[in-house]
Amino acid sequence: MINIAVLGYGVVGSGVVEVVKKNEMSISKKAGEKIAVKRILDIRDFPDSPDAELITKNPDEIFNDDSISIIVETIGGIGAAYEFTKRAFQKGKHVVTSNKELVATYGPELLKLAKDSGVNYLFEASVGGGIPIIRPLSECLAANEISSIIGILNGTTNYILTQMKKEGRDFASALKSAQQNGYAEADPTADIEGHDTCRKIAILSSIAYNEFVDYKNIHTEGITKITKEDMQYAEVMGSVIKLIAVSRKVNDKIFARVSPAIISKFHPLANVEDVFNAILVSGNAIGDVMFYGRGAGKLPTASAVVADVIDIVKHTGNGRRNVWEKKDYNNVIDISESETRYFVRAATENGKEVKNHILSIFGNVEFIKLERPEFEDEIAFVTMKSTEKDLSAKVSRLKEADTINGIKNIIRVEGE
Amino acid sequence: MINIAVLGYGVVGSGVVEVVKKNEMSISKKAGEKIAVKRILDIRDFPDSPDAELITKNPDEIFNDDSISIIVETIGGIGAAYEFTKRAFQKGKHVVTSNKELVATYGPELLKLAKDSGVNYLFEASVGGGIPIIRPLSECLAANEISSIIGILNGTTNYILTQMKKEGRDFASALKSAQQNGYAEADPTADIEGHDTCRKIAILSSIAYNEFVDYKNIHTEGITKITKEDMQYAEVMGSVIKLIAVSRKVNDKIFARVSPAIISKFHPLANVEDVFNAILVSGNAIGDVMFYGRGAGKLPTASAVVADVIDIVKHTGNGRRNVWEKKDYNNVIDISESETRYFVRAATENGKEVKNHILSIFGNVEFIKLERPEFEDEIAFVTMKSTEKDLSAKVSRLKEADTINGIKNIIRVEGE
Repeated sequence: MINIAVLGYGVVGSGVVEVVKKNEMSISKKAGEKIAVKRILDIRDFPDSPDAELITKNPDEIFNDDSISIIVETIGGIGAAYEFTKRAFQKGKHVVTSNKELVATYGPELLKLAKDSGVNYLFEASVGGGIPIIRPLSECLAANEISSIIGILNGTTNYILTQMKKEGRDFASALKSAQQNGYAEADPTADIEGHDTCRKIAILSSIAYNEFVDYKNIHTEGITKITKEDMQYAEVMGSVIKLIAVSRKVNDKIFARVSPAIISKFHPLANVEDVFNAILVSGNAIGDVMFYGRGAGKLPTASAVVADVIDIVKHTGNGRRNVWEKKDYNNVIDISESETRYFVRAATENGKEVKNHILSIFGNVEFIKLERPEFEDEIAFVTMKSTEKDLSAKVSRLKEADTINGIKNIIRVEGE
Repeated sequence: MINIAVLGYGVVGSGVVEVVKKNEMSISKKAGEKIAVKRILDIRDFPDSPDAELITKNPDEIFNDDSISIIVETIGGIGAAYEFTKRAFQKGKHVVTSNKELVATYGPELLKLAKDSGVNYLFEASVGGGIPIIRPLSECLAANEISSIIGILNGTTNYILTQMKKEGRDFASALKSAQQNGYAEADPTADIEGHDTCRKIAILSSIAYNEFVDYKNIHTEGITKITKEDMQYAEVMGSVIKLIAVSRKVNDKIFARVSPAIISKFHPLANVEDVFNAILVSGNAIGDVMFYGRGAGKLPTASAVVADVIDIVKHTGNGRRNVWEKKDYNNVIDISESETRYFVRAATENGKEVKNHILSIFGNVEFIKLERPEFEDEIAFVTMKSTEKDLSAKVSRLKEADTINGIKNIIRVEGE
């Protein structure tokens, strides 16, 4: 019998308790031992919960209980969760978490601490909800040198963009729809500004390239500036707009970015809609492989947490533990040095004249024309690939042109 | 330093040697130890191979070498591979294989033998080539009760069907194209008759449902009877034809089938084209999750083999080992009892009259009409869902009708 304790009885935490109970038989068969939730830590009261008698407000009842060998941390954030995780390791307890913020922030320290304590720190649920990605990346693809990861890692923003595309909604209306359907929180900042996606690509990159990638070094833009007009341009370009997280190994550095991007309809990620997530990984032996599923939700995420618990039980804490080497320099390429193509929309009343000016600044570009009255007073084009620094300078020059009445939007174009 | 030996220096075996050498640095970093190929067993001579000095014809040089702890079996088949695998276990050596035939045939015995010998028997590469599916299914989704698996598990047939659909080729011409491109063997029987797919779904089902599913009990049909005319019908139905492996847990039994099937263009598997494979797994916590990638090829398959080797090195042979319980009865539902819908094409010179006859036999059906001269002397329809036994009886009655000049084809329709 393996006793576990759950810290934080929120959506994921209560989901973990539910899954452990619901699939008790098959879990014990797979793990080789019965697994039971002995204690739940939460500062709130849950008098009506079926688990009420397991809930305690006193962490000592968990940490000083030697019969509890695995801690599930579903508190979130980097405050109490951080302290409790360290305390668990000191007490020789394994920790399983869904807390991407904590892993992205203190991953190197916590992995090292776990290793030194002879216990595991697993976090399959921190990226992609229930989609198996952390273990496949770290174990199944271990024979590969990973060259790139590109993914849709946030269900909320993908739902919003899908609504904008399919229903012709604007951003605000699509966000409201996401909130009404429970796909976005009252304060949606972390999702719509790309912060959530940023932490996830930082974690995946750290695993893929075997060195810590600090999320603070990753250039991150959200989707709040995407308009339904941009969606219409993407449509005529045979493309869609997605919030894309991408990272690539470039010599001994790492390129990583989170931003909306225009991708071709033939791109494997183009058909990933609504709250689904997908991650495309390229390795030097396997080629491309893609993982797809629900990136969030109570039971999918809980299922990933419990899988980590089962893994620990099956291997009873054995095995070599990887740590994330933390470089003493910024190993992420500065965004200004990275190469991309830009889709640019500018307001103008003189389409003809401005075309030549654009060509003189940007060299060869591809003009995109929407033959509708509401697009009459603007011009749009896709640039060739060059560094972001170079492109920004050119955009600045464009802004100064008399014929240009402002830049309406700039969106990166991903792919060749 | 971990020494491994590779049995069989064919496509996959030589790929394993190549990957181990090519990614030596990153592999040893992930495994925590250097991994080296010490010996290769093959009865053939390879004087020009870069690995020539490692190759031996004498298995004793491998099995009696205590410094070799892991055997990679890439011989294939159930003859020598079976004997060598057992011998390895007796010698306390772990075995990693890509041999789906051996795993599907002797899985229960070999897993039990491995467990009793305290070693591992891993076979990630046996299904889906490089796509991580065995470990995700057995570990990452361990918290779920798996309700169904549906997949495209054979790249050769998927390439042929894609050619037929996109290029309007007939089966023979598409097969020839597959052979010319190296996607089909000179004797393509195992692929085109569905045998390869059958063994793979048997392995996945055995893992998913925690009991041995004998491939011999799985109803299997290949794609040789699919015509380009069938493809045209699928097209107007908003669907595609794929070689589909499906298995479902139905109470305490298992439904499993391999056959061509008509699936909607909106089905997640519909866009899986050419030599790609994809597997959609449904669990009671995670919902649907899909794995996608190249299902075959030298380096992708080798990458899966080497990942298993790394896993063994990392866990240094520890961990609880699952075995496949072998029921003393047939745990697979007889195909005649399973429910499906049928697409039926019959030759007739009297479309009007025969319609009423069809309705009188099948009850409500959906007629599919192709408005082209070459389809004038036939009638096609999709039945409602009922048991295969029931549907076959109805088709037999239809055949007897005076107005029917023969059944042109019958294809299952998958999905609601």
